[in-house]
Amino acid sequence: MLKSGTSASVSWLAAVLAISSILTGSLCTGDIRTSCSDRDILPRKLVDEIRGYAPVIKSIINAVVHGSERNKTYEDLALFVDTFGARYTGTAVLERSIDYMVQLLKRRRLDNVHTEPARVPRWVRGYEAAWMVSPRLHKLPILGLGYSAPTPRHGITAPILVVDSFEELHENRHKAIGKIVVFNQKFVSYDVTSKYRKRGPEEAAKAGAVAVLVRSVTPFSIATPHTGYTAFTERRFRIPSASITVEDAQLLKRMQDRGITPVVKLIMHNKDLPAVISRNTVAEITGREKPREVVIVSGHIDSWDVGQGAMDDGGGAFISWRALDVFRRLGLRPRRTVRSVLWTAEEVGTMGAEQYFADHADERNECINIAMESDMGTFKPKGLAFSGHSERARCVIAEVLSLFSDIDATELTIGADAPDLRKWIKAGFPVASLTTHNEKYFYFHHTEGDTMTVHDPKVLDLCTAMWAGVAYVLADLHDSLPRR
Amino acid sequence: MLKSGTSASVSWLAAVLAISSILTGSLCTGDIRTSCSDRDILPRKLVDEIRGYAPVIKSIINAVVHGSERNKTYEDLALFVDTFGARYTGTAVLERSIDYMVQLLKRRRLDNVHTEPARVPRWVRGYEAAWMVSPRLHKLPILGLGYSAPTPRHGITAPILVVDSFEELHENRHKAIGKIVVFNQKFVSYDVTSKYRKRGPEEAAKAGAVAVLVRSVTPFSIATPHTGYTAFTERRFRIPSASITVEDAQLLKRMQDRGITPVVKLIMHNKDLPAVISRNTVAEITGREKPREVVIVSGHIDSWDVGQGAMDDGGGAFISWRALDVFRRLGLRPRRTVRSVLWTAEEVGTMGAEQYFADHADERNECINIAMESDMGTFKPKGLAFSGHSERARCVIAEVLSLFSDIDATELTIGADAPDLRKWIKAGFPVASLTTHNEKYFYFHHTEGDTMTVHDPKVLDLCTAMWAGVAYVLADLHDSLPRR
Repeated sequence: MLKSGTSASVSWLAAVLAISSILTGSLCTGDIRTSCSDRDILPRKLVDEIRGYAPVIKSIINAVVHGSERNKTYEDLALFVDTFGARYTGTAVLERSIDYMVQLLKRRRLDNVHTEPARVPRWVRGYEAAWMVSPRLHKLPILGLGYSAPTPRHGITAPILVVDSFEELHENRHKAIGKIVVFNQKFVSYDVTSKYRKRGPEEAAKAGAVAVLVRSVTPFSIATPHTGYTAFTERRFRIPSASITVEDAQLLKRMQDRGITPVVKLIMHNKDLPAVISRNTVAEITGREKPREVVIVSGHIDSWDVGQGAMDDGGGAFISWRALDVFRRLGLRPRRTVRSVLWTAEEVGTMGAEQYFADHADERNECINIAMESDMGTFKPKGLAFSGHSERARCVIAEVLSLFSDIDATELTIGADAPDLRKWIKAGFPVASLTTHNEKYFYFHHTEGDTMTVHDPKVLDLCTAMWAGVAYVLADLHDSLPRR
Repeated sequence: MLKSGTSASVSWLAAVLAISSILTGSLCTGDIRTSCSDRDILPRKLVDEIRGYAPVIKSIINAVVHGSERNKTYEDLALFVDTFGARYTGTAVLERSIDYMVQLLKRRRLDNVHTEPARVPRWVRGYEAAWMVSPRLHKLPILGLGYSAPTPRHGITAPILVVDSFEELHENRHKAIGKIVVFNQKFVSYDVTSKYRKRGPEEAAKAGAVAVLVRSVTPFSIATPHTGYTAFTERRFRIPSASITVEDAQLLKRMQDRGITPVVKLIMHNKDLPAVISRNTVAEITGREKPREVVIVSGHIDSWDVGQGAMDDGGGAFISWRALDVFRRLGLRPRRTVRSVLWTAEEVGTMGAEQYFADHADERNECINIAMESDMGTFKPKGLAFSGHSERARCVIAEVLSLFSDIDATELTIGADAPDLRKWIKAGFPVASLTTHNEKYFYFHHTEGDTMTVHDPKVLDLCTAMWAGVAYVLADLHDSLPRR
């Protein structure tokens, strides 16, 4: 998961929804946890129709959690990530993994399996290392941040300035000149705290810093550096930037508080290479009655260049195509087409998804009912988060969720967390994302620890069943999902 | 914490105590969680005397947790571990940290500050690295195990054999010849699971393995390797041995289960150097009435060569000397002497403690009342664990613990976890160790993550208050602690 800007727009959208609900006097209020207790907003017939899907949802859950499909998402995902490891944008291994997926999706007899090209950038990590060289020698585990500038060949050696916040940087900007600025921000939430990784380097550069080290964006660490991209609006602000561990950020801060100015040597040999073409991977189960109408279920196939990308976003990508695989195996073919998209280049700026958004404008306006993405982990599912202008659509989702009481995943929250669908969300399009008990997601996110060890086969089954079940009902209802 | 053999002897001792309790019909039974509800075992006068310490315990807790001593253990420890980092046996940095402690203990005006020499071995980590080279290239984070043999200069490249247990190794021993054996044992408890690290390499060598990789002994990992020592009974069994992450052990196992035989390249340039002299560090508060009688509070000053040794055993060492510091600052001087010992060379085989055991035999037989060690983490205290032949001594401890209800640390468990006092425990001597809510101790143990970040200043205060309070009462009681 890249996540950039989503949170702001989501919060804004939630606020708009809340206000509009108050104005219309609906009970289906824009509370963060919401339901649609005012049944009048949906016609009785529609509610009854949705409830009529209880047996098919039960059969999906049974097959995936207990029956013939049991453990298959885990096994398919493990084979995939163990075979390829990290699938970083611009690498041959990502492209080979896409080829593999195309073959696999065809072997599983999904419809219309193909890829769609997207131009993607190439920022490549090289040798990188950092040491505190004074007051004593201490190696700092680091991970360079995507789009960071490299250091000169022999590195940069400079005293550090630790700040805990942007405010502290601005108050002490005269001290930042010629320093390596260390952001030691506390973890609050990913949305709040990742701003230091995304904007911190440029902010420090503006104050005259020669490089930046950002405390990894995580609530928990075992000396674990977490990478991610950083943003520069102008080339002249682009300075060497890396993440350091929570432990080392705190160590440097304690030393500074004692009146010591530690000196750090930072070496980063990363490179920018010419852009290349990557591909979004698409597969479908063609609708039996309205094949041109589409429900999208998606995740991204690319990962950071550390770990296996098993959770970010192997899990989301695999429950998405596996939903279709389950339909095929169970002989289910909904009225509309269900389309699985495995986005490329999410981590480096959602380039695959942006290209798709541009290429499918007409279809989006006319034929796509809803776009769903899972990219916040595939832990035990809680329900869905929803974004979109339509209150009625939201109430349909709430009603659909009531079908998942057997697996305790009926919760509807407002504000989808779907980085690849950011533009769809901004446009007010119906978007849903999977919500799970993902309290530990940011322990592993963008680290070497993002591996199959984080996954539980049974939990992946629950996610698959839920993702497939929701997509099935939304694709099969008589009427299209309301847009307004 | 090194831990070797303690568990077995402790379990045995617990069993003996349990049986002897049943035979004597005492209510003070050898249950794992125990109390002394049969008051008759202790004279009423003694019980009243112990209870009379409530005000002094209250004053210690008040000063350390809320008053003038607040946060001081954390601050002293942070300054120490930040200044020196890892303090590995045989290194100059360990000796400099001992010099520093001697000066600090003198500055804090403790009595009889001195060091006592002990001969310690030097196994030194060199360059070390491992890669899975087939079926794809994947770097394995490793930490060589103490006393491992080095590989040849250019490493060992060999196919692997993954086994989940000793039983599986023995069933497949013909397959181990010429292989790098990977132990992928599940974490059960440190005592149970660390046997794979301690005995696994030799067991594999006996089966013909050329090297061993042991899954790190931990219930939780973020791609974290955990070091520790391994034991070889004969030189010919000594083969290159390193820990790998939980994630990589599981990856290799999944690959093997799919019929693949991964090939691993292992390079380890560690060395054995001649033994050197290190030192146990001793400080005292001399008893006001019985200065030759002694209560020992201890922890070890050395650490593994990764992280800061802040938890293992910075916390234990620092609450031990800080207990004396608190007495001095509060003007408390118990009847007996309280002696703080900071053991050296615990992690590589408790050489400092062994030397002390040998050197202080007479004193131990006549003058030492009890030896206490904290080396299982300084998380929120629960109480004490006790070993020793004397049921009466155990009941005294239980009664003393009742004074700590304000901080919810009254629990007495059987079987002290005190690696440096292993010989004392075996001899049936009264030994107590600190028990805490240390469920996450083995997340950090022997890793780069053992830093001040694991510590909480308030929690260290609770540990200090408790450790000081128990030592004070035991050193101040009219009668010596019973041995039988």
